[in-house]
Amino acid sequence: MYPAADVLGPADVITDPAAMVPYLTDWRGLFTGEAAAVMLPRTAEAVAAVLRWASQTRTPVVPQGGNTGLSGGATPDASGRAVVLSLERLNRIRTVDPIGNTLIAEAGCILATVQESAAAAGREFPVSIGSEGSCQIGGILATNAGGIAVIRHGMTRDLVLGLEYVTAGGEIVRGPKRLRKNNAGYDLRHLLLGSEGTLAVITAAALRIVRPPPARGSALVAVASPDDALRLLRTLREGAGEEILAFELMCGAEMDLVRARFPQARYPLTARHSWYVFIEIGGECEASVSARLETALSGAFEAGTIVDAVIAATEAQAREIWHLRFAVSEANRLAGPTASHDVSVATEDVPALIAGVAARLGTEFSGTRALFVGHVGDGNIHVNVLFPGNDALAAQGAAVNAAVYALVHDLGGSISAEHGIGRLKSAVFARISDPVELRLMREIKQAFDPAGILNPGAVISAGEPQPRDAIPSRINGTVALTTTSSADQENDEREARLRMLLNRRS
Amino acid sequence: MYPAADVLGPADVITDPAAMVPYLTDWRGLFTGEAAAVMLPRTAEAVAAVLRWASQTRTPVVPQGGNTGLSGGATPDASGRAVVLSLERLNRIRTVDPIGNTLIAEAGCILATVQESAAAAGREFPVSIGSEGSCQIGGILATNAGGIAVIRHGMTRDLVLGLEYVTAGGEIVRGPKRLRKNNAGYDLRHLLLGSEGTLAVITAAALRIVRPPPARGSALVAVASPDDALRLLRTLREGAGEEILAFELMCGAEMDLVRARFPQARYPLTARHSWYVFIEIGGECEASVSARLETALSGAFEAGTIVDAVIAATEAQAREIWHLRFAVSEANRLAGPTASHDVSVATEDVPALIAGVAARLGTEFSGTRALFVGHVGDGNIHVNVLFPGNDALAAQGAAVNAAVYALVHDLGGSISAEHGIGRLKSAVFARISDPVELRLMREIKQAFDPAGILNPGAVISAGEPQPRDAIPSRINGTVALTTTSSADQENDEREARLRMLLNRRS
Repeated sequence: MYPAADVLGPADVITDPAAMVPYLTDWRGLFTGEAAAVMLPRTAEAVAAVLRWASQTRTPVVPQGGNTGLSGGATPDASGRAVVLSLERLNRIRTVDPIGNTLIAEAGCILATVQESAAAAGREFPVSIGSEGSCQIGGILATNAGGIAVIRHGMTRDLVLGLEYVTAGGEIVRGPKRLRKNNAGYDLRHLLLGSEGTLAVITAAALRIVRPPPARGSALVAVASPDDALRLLRTLREGAGEEILAFELMCGAEMDLVRARFPQARYPLTARHSWYVFIEIGGECEASVSARLETALSGAFEAGTIVDAVIAATEAQAREIWHLRFAVSEANRLAGPTASHDVSVATEDVPALIAGVAARLGTEFSGTRALFVGHVGDGNIHVNVLFPGNDALAAQGAAVNAAVYALVHDLGGSISAEHGIGRLKSAVFARISDPVELRLMREIKQAFDPAGILNPGAVISAGEPQPRDAIPSRINGTVALTTTSSADQENDEREARLRMLLNRRS
Repeated sequence: MYPAADVLGPADVITDPAAMVPYLTDWRGLFTGEAAAVMLPRTAEAVAAVLRWASQTRTPVVPQGGNTGLSGGATPDASGRAVVLSLERLNRIRTVDPIGNTLIAEAGCILATVQESAAAAGREFPVSIGSEGSCQIGGILATNAGGIAVIRHGMTRDLVLGLEYVTAGGEIVRGPKRLRKNNAGYDLRHLLLGSEGTLAVITAAALRIVRPPPARGSALVAVASPDDALRLLRTLREGAGEEILAFELMCGAEMDLVRARFPQARYPLTARHSWYVFIEIGGECEASVSARLETALSGAFEAGTIVDAVIAATEAQAREIWHLRFAVSEANRLAGPTASHDVSVATEDVPALIAGVAARLGTEFSGTRALFVGHVGDGNIHVNVLFPGNDALAAQGAAVNAAVYALVHDLGGSISAEHGIGRLKSAVFARISDPVELRLMREIKQAFDPAGILNPGAVISAGEPQPRDAIPSRINGTVALTTTSSADQENDEREARLRMLLNRRS
């Protein structure tokens, strides 16, 4: 059997160790691996050639898009046996149809490029995430990316009409079909979406695009509690219905952190508050959108649901408001060691989740500081626990994770609302999933990838070892929910301590 | 092993032949079968008991909701070995949450009951189909029902957040979770949705509900061609964006048929036209919704895109307009033998599909009359071919089906946009599907239902014999796309002739 470099021809294969480096570490530096080669196919046929070769040689294949994932789903292990299959050169926009409101993009298209192509036709591809300037369509489909616009347009999967993909054995399923309705047989599309490259390799997709609302309005609102944030959501739904484009919650401590890290950012309210809600609504009619936002907020103020509010009078003011929300990731990154969680519950259970986490941290992990920020309209809260200047506390990161996941589990929530499982959470996922569903998922994996070459170690292949040579900057969801064995727990705690020490040094 | 009647207790099992009759024939009278019993469980636990018993005894189980399906997916075969598993007694609304906009309903809830429960909370469950007064939630989930509101809210699957279900082996997967975001593992939910009871039995679902737009407007528009209908869609999208709630196309011959069958129905235009578009838009602001509809239509009139139009000035007028659209099913049913097709293509390909079908029927099947009606904004057209008083022509129904499906296939379309595969189309589905996808579907079926007890003969179990004792009222999609063998073709033609003769007698 010929080596990796001969499968595609030398121009489309990287084997030089220095040139491979950017493909071997994830964006946050949590995972680093080795690879035999980076393969860069330009067509679906070339992807099929790679996968046929990999099947025959039993070579692990790690599909990779823009490498902006947050769960280590696109980094090979340390063995050096795998090849990275980068889709970046399969990057054409094939069609844009503003009548049927569809757009066909190949997997390697940058999300921003797709957004621009839709905009050129007077349309919008409404996935809005921080990494949109570098993440790729194949990656956001494989991870079913979420983001700010989910409350109005759903997750990425809700915007996909059809897929073209290549099976583990190298068969091409042609497409993608631009059908808005297709009830012929089982929906394999949704099975591949969110499967993180473990079932097949997506090469192109037919996407839904929408006509963006011509009128938009933004507001920053102060509320006393998460309960009041949900009361405001209810008020706003009565007033603006499906025109709500974004409804984000942030705690006061998170805002303090953002303001401290970005002192030049304009804070448009006069006082500091306990909780903030960021709102955007959009509709057909400028006057009625502004009026509706004003009416809803003044009503909420009179009812005592909100404490203060500012409505952006200009687009520049709207950008200033949203800058405070979008600065969260960077502010948190600079805040030192954190235990972060991307969890979701039913929307009405968000106050119980927040109260439960705060109470449990207060009693069991006093000295930690919990920051809450997220897409409250979708029930998705990012819980970031800080250990301010306290290594002994930080070493308890694993126990903090376990406590948060236990609360989420009790509320019937998800340990991964939008970031996926990847390699980061595969162990905890295997431990807390419904055993029947886990068995079905494993059988599906077996049916799609009998040789187990596709992204081994990610999602459900929980038996794979976690990379030990990575230098993590966060403790993040790799720990046990319950102490299934004391060895497990010890292992988790050791890992958390190790990560913390390495992180403090870096 | 105890008999079927002992599994649930006598009150919840029907074995009396006369009492079983309503469960053994489908709504259109296309399929009739026999059953050992009709099981009527009241809880998920009772469903599990039935499925454990069926697994142990290798008894085929045919899940059934309101029995309003159009593809024979809920009728047992003629052997009398199967049991019908009716979900009608598992029919509670568990929760309605107007903040998170979710509703949990059990499988046996009538769709209209769910709509009413949502309305009582100021919300709407936006699935709108003709059978909503008798179809059940479990059935619309299992078949992924479509309907009028798809252009705005998507198919039924797009409104489902989580499922509770029972596996073929009788294991209950508890739920349903009301999570708007959950990226933990493969999406089994979407695999079960649309699988027509062949993979598991859905017992409850968490559904998305929405705040309905307070202002609505309807119009009936005459256009010269399907091309102009799409031009109008584009104009309307520029003017009303995502406020378009429905956009339906109907040919003049179909309108003639409706008016002839329902002479009391008010026809609000002055002349007869070649093509009609039914429009509904809805938004937050009464004045701007009406103004937008008027502006779009007067602009289209000046541009020569439309020939005539009437905008409903009152709700009663809107109902009169939509009555003409909703009367189509009944008018077609009374029109004698038809070959009907529920097909979809990319929206922009609808004119090519219609022109292709009309041309091919004109040259190869002269004397037939093709009626076109459907959800043009979603690319879903129902093609109904009439054989006016001509048995010799009618005997060619199988060849007509083959011609229509060939055109759909060439355009990359679907032979079942919204009605599912059931038993009616399982043979043609097996013949025209992508062989890779068909293999994957069969392996998925094997993983979920290794004993093959769940709804055998439906969807992908194409090897099962079609019921020969049924008296069909239509020739409908059971024929070959291509003449894979002359025996196949002869068989199809014989079946079509037989059905036609039986139908003419009835």
